Amino acid sequence: MNSLYSPKIDTLIQSLKCLPGVGSKSAQRLAFHLLEKNQEGAITLSNAIVDSVKNVKNCTRCYILTEDIICQICENQKRDHTILCVVETPSDVLAIEQSRCYSGLYFVLMGHLSPIDGIGPEDIGIPKLIDRISQENINEIILATNSTIEGEATSHYISEIAKKHNIKTSRIAHGIPIGGELEYIDPNTISQAITHRAAIT
Amino acid sequence: MNSLYSPKIDTLIQSLKCLPGVGSKSAQRLAFHLLEKNQEGAITLSNAIVDSVKNVKNCTRCYILTEDIICQICENQKRDHTILCVVETPSDVLAIEQSRCYSGLYFVLMGHLSPIDGIGPEDIGIPKLIDRISQENINEIILATNSTIEGEATSHYISEIAKKHNIKTSRIAHGIPIGGELEYIDPNTISQAITHRAAIT
Repeated sequence: MNSLYSPKIDTLIQSLKCLPGVGSKSAQRLAFHLLEKNQEGAITLSNAIVDSVKNVKNCTRCYILTEDIICQICENQKRDHTILCVVETPSDVLAIEQSRCYSGLYFVLMGHLSPIDGIGPEDIGIPKLIDRISQENINEIILATNSTIEGEATSHYISEIAKKHNIKTSRIAHGIPIGGELEYIDPNTISQAITHRAAIT
Repeated sequence: MNSLYSPKIDTLIQSLKCLPGVGSKSAQRLAFHLLEKNQEGAITLSNAIVDSVKNVKNCTRCYILTEDIICQICENQKRDHTILCVVETPSDVLAIEQSRCYSGLYFVLMGHLSPIDGIGPEDIGIPKLIDRISQENINEIILATNSTIEGEATSHYISEIAKKHNIKTSRIAHGIPIGGELEYIDPNTISQAITHRAAIT
């Protein structure tokens, strides 16, 4: 298949593979779609990529992605500035915001503790988090890191820090997802759901 | 969800939707992936898009996508210049090339006849095809348009022209795909497969 198409098409196909879930075949399909059917959309996409990569940075206060110095969530005075939800990535913030159930602030760690990969507290912004805890009037920290081993360890580590500062901490609930059928749920989740069952009052 | 993220992220998400099969949720996921994890890949992709859209055109002889005036297939003297395979799109050429079973030339119609949409012979380059048939030493035309109503009509139309020029024409075979199980094949295909059964010699 070498040199069937011109080098520039090959380069486009290779570049499209940087998208998650896009392999050789999909990349080919996307490339042909852009070149044959949507050149205008392709140029718009190209400009949007450059523009966002150049301008979108992390909020200096909570580290979510934004093109402002302080993001719209941190700036929003209608939100509850006494609750802080700690998550691993900016995408996690989006997921929580889409649930429309939380109106406090966030702190994005941009990762999790992982001593085996050499990722310590400094690498995930823990000193900055401690600064915020000390300086701001925060009443509660909600730990919403992933329920992986590293996520749990990170959550535990932060809860210990919060304890020292006498701040209430909570961990998001684990259990059966809404709409989930018990039959298809993994044993660990069922175990969590039963252990942390809620009394019906 | 309005204005949760900055306008530039929103623009990126909207632009990503120009890719086939990418809806709102996938576009979000792709955007975050590019911004959080692969800014370098994103810039490379952006450049590849602009570069290919600007430089890749249709081969002036067969209309496949290429950055040269005449594509590498048309230029290749090792290929059989007496057979012409007529297809609807450049992607079809790729599919045939990947099967490595054909070494002739191509002619890409960039569509099919569709009177209802106002697409006539001139719109799919039939005059150019007639020129080639008249001027070049072509012995056979393989009609590889899609097996849709429009594809069949286009194929029939071209076969009539070829007949006038005393050129042998053939249509690619329709039947059960290799690995296909009869049980799951649609009745039209089975009907084709039985009608055009091949004698075992």
